[in-house]
Amino acid sequence: MTYVEGYENLIELVAAGDQDALRQALNEMPSADVAEYMDEHFEVYSTLTLMQLLEPAQQAEVFGYLRPNNQQEIASHMEVGLLAQLFRDMSSDERADVYALLDIKLQDALMRRLARSEREDLLRLASYEEGTVGSVMTSDYATVPTGSTVEQALKKLRQSAPEKESIYQAYVIDAQHKLLGVVSLRQLITAAPIEIMDDLMTKDVVTVNPDMPQSEAARIISRYDLIAIPAVTDDNLLVGMVTFDDAMDVVEEEDTDTMHRSATVGKIEGGLRDASIFMLYRKRINWLVLLVFVNIFSGAAIAFYEETISAYISLLFFLPLLIASGGNSGAQSATLMIRGIATGEVAKGDWFRMLGKELAVSLGLGITMAVAIVLVGSFRAGPDIMLVVALSMLCIVLIGSMVGLLLPFLLNRLGWDPATASTPLVTTIADASGVLIYFGIATAILGLPAAGA
Amino acid sequence: MTYVEGYENLIELVAAGDQDALRQALNEMPSADVAEYMDEHFEVYSTLTLMQLLEPAQQAEVFGYLRPNNQQEIASHMEVGLLAQLFRDMSSDERADVYALLDIKLQDALMRRLARSEREDLLRLASYEEGTVGSVMTSDYATVPTGSTVEQALKKLRQSAPEKESIYQAYVIDAQHKLLGVVSLRQLITAAPIEIMDDLMTKDVVTVNPDMPQSEAARIISRYDLIAIPAVTDDNLLVGMVTFDDAMDVVEEEDTDTMHRSATVGKIEGGLRDASIFMLYRKRINWLVLLVFVNIFSGAAIAFYEETISAYISLLFFLPLLIASGGNSGAQSATLMIRGIATGEVAKGDWFRMLGKELAVSLGLGITMAVAIVLVGSFRAGPDIMLVVALSMLCIVLIGSMVGLLLPFLLNRLGWDPATASTPLVTTIADASGVLIYFGIATAILGLPAAGA
Repeated sequence: MTYVEGYENLIELVAAGDQDALRQALNEMPSADVAEYMDEHFEVYSTLTLMQLLEPAQQAEVFGYLRPNNQQEIASHMEVGLLAQLFRDMSSDERADVYALLDIKLQDALMRRLARSEREDLLRLASYEEGTVGSVMTSDYATVPTGSTVEQALKKLRQSAPEKESIYQAYVIDAQHKLLGVVSLRQLITAAPIEIMDDLMTKDVVTVNPDMPQSEAARIISRYDLIAIPAVTDDNLLVGMVTFDDAMDVVEEEDTDTMHRSATVGKIEGGLRDASIFMLYRKRINWLVLLVFVNIFSGAAIAFYEETISAYISLLFFLPLLIASGGNSGAQSATLMIRGIATGEVAKGDWFRMLGKELAVSLGLGITMAVAIVLVGSFRAGPDIMLVVALSMLCIVLIGSMVGLLLPFLLNRLGWDPATASTPLVTTIADASGVLIYFGIATAILGLPAAGA
Repeated sequence: MTYVEGYENLIELVAAGDQDALRQALNEMPSADVAEYMDEHFEVYSTLTLMQLLEPAQQAEVFGYLRPNNQQEIASHMEVGLLAQLFRDMSSDERADVYALLDIKLQDALMRRLARSEREDLLRLASYEEGTVGSVMTSDYATVPTGSTVEQALKKLRQSAPEKESIYQAYVIDAQHKLLGVVSLRQLITAAPIEIMDDLMTKDVVTVNPDMPQSEAARIISRYDLIAIPAVTDDNLLVGMVTFDDAMDVVEEEDTDTMHRSATVGKIEGGLRDASIFMLYRKRINWLVLLVFVNIFSGAAIAFYEETISAYISLLFFLPLLIASGGNSGAQSATLMIRGIATGEVAKGDWFRMLGKELAVSLGLGITMAVAIVLVGSFRAGPDIMLVVALSMLCIVLIGSMVGLLLPFLLNRLGWDPATASTPLVTTIADASGVLIYFGIATAILGLPAAGA
């Protein structure tokens, strides 16, 4: 059954109210699909009823996939004993995320129903700041003690498999829980049963620190094609594991943030769907108002050249075109640089080499654009004005591209996120320079004094 | 040893020329790091010498990580027999990618040195179009025949482990190589040795088709948190497998394309570093020139209102600010929508609900911006002009946001990539409407006839 068929089948079964058929269909569907159905048709009591038809393990999985808003709703309407059971079945990183959403009273009530080890684990994971490795890592990793044989290790993995998020990597630890090495299940099943962990394991393990940004862990996982990466403290104590699927979520989330930021939209927690109107307003207004002040310079530049404009009002015909061209070429080079820096393709020290390349490219773009505008505009104005327009186009495209190239590098050097050099910021700076260049060249060539001169 | 230490250590060892120490260091470093070093210090003969210090398996891995340009260089300078050996050791998806880069003569020479099964596999994988599932899938997946016991399956996996990319999923197939189900290694090692595959396996397998876009496979892998997904033909023949690390690369590549496209930069094959100046020029010029023509409308709108402008030249002071505000708010809503559609957060049918939300948000933005411009601009112009400016700001922000919201939806409905509704396109449309709205309102309120009226 395809995803869509399964989905439509579910809608029918819910409508028909056949509990047995519904129970069977739900338990055969992938948890992500069940969760999507529940999110789309969320209504706290009917969703709770559906949840109760699921096997405990799948219930926990489905709950983990639900949107945060809906998790919160369900949790606050559930009997605390049942919620504690659900928490026990959930993976440790997901339950820590849900825990953070609950109000303090419910957190307390829940805590009192959990075993001490679960309580400590929950508090520890929930204590990491959002966006750190600690906030996405799980404590459901598999370990084997140093000195074990392959046979002992396999036996331990078999027994603990149901509670572990992944048993494809086993971490070899000493009595203090320090990480000594890693063995893959692939190594284990192909090795001789009597071989000792310490001879088999990879000792040069790539690790992350729980206080690192989560995006760094994601980058490492992607770079080395890892299924999971262990998180260790500065003194090499094993505290968690980040899995490839968490890394994929992180990459998606970070890319969304980058794209939003480069259009001057602030970070939207919890996704676009759950965002309230006021939150969206807040995430957008700051930069818009800031750009008002930057744009005042363009206005001031126009005011400065008012006499030139009054004398040659046909100059205005080309104004939108010229300033937009600077902005557009600036947006292109800024985006190329921002993405190049983000994916690691362009290093901090590369700006000089990139500058040479960009100069050549934007010179070509500027010349082409100058020719294009002369072809398009000649019926509108005489040759003297067209000379001004063509020269301005060339300079504006060059300067726009340079702003787009250098701003991300500059921000990166200052330790800021290059994506803050958002397209609108580059466009706005290119706009203001465009006005100055255009009327400056016009005044010089057409021989009129500027108003303020 | 950290990544940076390893890297610097390597530089020193290469300089010192100590072959034994170099061999040891190279074989201990992760392949991705060795490849990065080679890419950064690429010189065909010295890189070939370094390659020869690696164990065959690592040599193949490192080679797979190199930049396409460099793979091509190395391959064309290698003795064909050695190249064939390298190909044998590579994973099937990576060698198909390299094969496609070689010139026909070398392809032929190479083919003659490969065994028939390798040759057929290579040709088959290389025949899929770039961007499809077939172009990223591997044929190094593990299979077990229907009817096998757990014990037999484990034995088979153990024996075939060295050639397989992943043995964490085993595909259960019939005599025609049709896919019947999937068992994970986790299931296998926890099951009783005498259990039969067909009872153990998951029958409702999520699959992809080799002709699907690769991005769809990546989305499915990410959605269901899969380590790998089998690729099957329409009649359910198993032909390949896409692994999570390929999916991560696809996501990164697609996001780069989306970001570039939304700044009107065409798809850059092979990455920014390898792109020539002329290629970058080609990828940027088309849209820039196209936008020249769209911007002519803004110019025409200005020409249309020339009389109003001549009479109230101070209106010009606010022009850059007003058109930029429309463009900026349009860029914000376009980016939110494009990203929302790309991540699946916003569905095709959601536009009406999103429209209501966006209307409320942009109304708030417009009112705030109108107040801001009055505060900033009042010293520049009288109350009648400020009324025009404030009203225009409100309308322009509203219309800019609407264009930004609807264009991606419209393109998506037409089956195009919403990211084609690039920020510059939205900005340009918002610009032209801004000019019309501003001078239209000015003419209406200040009571002057338009030039063309």
